[in-house]
Amino acid sequence: MGTPWYFVALLLTILTSSQGILTTLSQSDQGGYNYDYATVPFLAEVFKLIISGLLLWRETRTATAKITKDWKSVRLFVIPSIIYLIHNNVQFATLTYVDTSTYQIMGNLKIVTTAILFRLFLKRKLSNLQWMAIGLLAVGTTTSQVKGCGEASCDSLFTAPIQGYLLGILSAALSALAGIYTEFLMKRNNDSLYWQNLQLYTFGSLFNVARLIADDFRLGFEKGPWWQRIFDGYSITTWLVVLNLGSTGLLVSWLMKHADNIVKVYSTSMAMLLTMVASIYLFSFKPTLQLFLGIIICIMSLHMYFAPPQTLVDLPTTSDAHPKTLKQVIVEEKTDS
Amino acid sequence: MGTPWYFVALLLTILTSSQGILTTLSQSDQGGYNYDYATVPFLAEVFKLIISGLLLWRETRTATAKITKDWKSVRLFVIPSIIYLIHNNVQFATLTYVDTSTYQIMGNLKIVTTAILFRLFLKRKLSNLQWMAIGLLAVGTTTSQVKGCGEASCDSLFTAPIQGYLLGILSAALSALAGIYTEFLMKRNNDSLYWQNLQLYTFGSLFNVARLIADDFRLGFEKGPWWQRIFDGYSITTWLVVLNLGSTGLLVSWLMKHADNIVKVYSTSMAMLLTMVASIYLFSFKPTLQLFLGIIICIMSLHMYFAPPQTLVDLPTTSDAHPKTLKQVIVEEKTDS
Repeated sequence: MGTPWYFVALLLTILTSSQGILTTLSQSDQGGYNYDYATVPFLAEVFKLIISGLLLWRETRTATAKITKDWKSVRLFVIPSIIYLIHNNVQFATLTYVDTSTYQIMGNLKIVTTAILFRLFLKRKLSNLQWMAIGLLAVGTTTSQVKGCGEASCDSLFTAPIQGYLLGILSAALSALAGIYTEFLMKRNNDSLYWQNLQLYTFGSLFNVARLIADDFRLGFEKGPWWQRIFDGYSITTWLVVLNLGSTGLLVSWLMKHADNIVKVYSTSMAMLLTMVASIYLFSFKPTLQLFLGIIICIMSLHMYFAPPQTLVDLPTTSDAHPKTLKQVIVEEKTDS
Repeated sequence: MGTPWYFVALLLTILTSSQGILTTLSQSDQGGYNYDYATVPFLAEVFKLIISGLLLWRETRTATAKITKDWKSVRLFVIPSIIYLIHNNVQFATLTYVDTSTYQIMGNLKIVTTAILFRLFLKRKLSNLQWMAIGLLAVGTTTSQVKGCGEASCDSLFTAPIQGYLLGILSAALSALAGIYTEFLMKRNNDSLYWQNLQLYTFGSLFNVARLIADDFRLGFEKGPWWQRIFDGYSITTWLVVLNLGSTGLLVSWLMKHADNIVKVYSTSMAMLLTMVASIYLFSFKPTLQLFLGIIICIMSLHMYFAPPQTLVDLPTTSDAHPKTLKQVIVEEKTDS
């Protein structure tokens, strides 16, 4: 596991950014999807399950992979799926009160809630500067999303009912909790990462199947059961969306084990900005001043969080800067007394 | 001179903020001025001259105020007035290329140019974190000024001719130069602040008179010479604008002597945000998300710049954290050899 975490984080940034672009490219000309979008996360879970299974099999052949099969341990891996299930429902409820652009703006709260739970549950300490960096990251991503003049749906931000904002905060807290809990799971013992993944994605796949079945019941099977039409409308791009989503999932797992949630948060925030910049070229989006400002803020935040503190501040010169020789110390102590 | 600089800086923030509000209140219902606006800075210079004269007179009676009357020293005090004269003309030229809102946005560059000249000419060192704080202050004030959706004059920012931007940068550099040069003047010797002010404001008053005369010639004396109509259209509010402008000038002089340009820059930037917040209540301006974000960014920048570094970062524990006693040092040195 000699891969440095920042390399994985960079790869995650690029793939997460491609995810947004590929999803847009996979849409039909009318802006909708020709395929059932709920099949994408299911197939991504299955992809991750297969890859993790193969890697675990390889690991057990060459090394002694540490595997805890105790049901008391295995059952812990169902909890992220349950949190995501609750989160999806809260998200749905939130969107009945606020519009999607307000929901998107509130999504930046996740950065702050992740840092808070990181501190509270994982007991990880952050310096004051790092707390400020986290705050700035949330401010920076929000800045980049400020509606430009001439855009539709003005001023919706301060006009939604209070329930909408409370549900938005709950949504951000649940999303953070899923990430923090996963980090806890991955780091609580030195089990093989692939074995941990296998458990995580097995439950993930089951919950996604349950969702597809629930959707079928909701629609009264009018289009037939999900397995008969799972690949309907799939194009090469749709498959790329699946592979991309699966790959980002595997990278996130790796980061949860070998780095932490804050690294993931920086990675996905930078990916959002990268997607916006790429959209200027790919989809002729208009570059805005707020996007430019948001990018500067987020890069500064990144530097504040990760740069070694001594490169950021000049500390008051203490005797440590020019250590005294023993002779000097003795002479001074003599003079004092 | 026991007054702490942050108290003066806070007062400057409040008065600078009132300046914008009073100026708006002094306008007629149609949005124009009933009085000749060029008389305001002239009267403010005269006000500062009188106050400084009185304070110097009081100082010479009770203490021995240090006064350098050498013409080689006095003539240095004309330079700020010359820089302001050039700046005004560059500003006028810039506005023929860019609109006022773009000019206002570019005005934030002054924060960065001030820091650069502060480093280059006054040889004052800033830590990397302080440089980032300066950058963030400029980003924060700019963020607060981003046009909201629905506002007029969209997208003018990236569409002006290149000359407009170059002149905007020159304007920011000249404005910074005037501030940095004044700080140099005030600190180059320990002359009485009031004597330094007296020289500064004498030249200031003369240049303002010259400007009023030039305006008269430009208009062909159609309204008569300036001194016959100097108080025409003056209301109580106009007088408050004059007093306020004069007072902020005196506070800035004090800060140039006892603090520095960076303190002034923070003070005036915070004042701009305070004016925008006050305008929400006074002139029923719409609160925008970008104003809220800009305020958070600027407050963080303020904290980053001025907070003692050791309160911001957790430094790697060195032996300095628990200084060794002489005995320990001796024991260790003995063990080594």
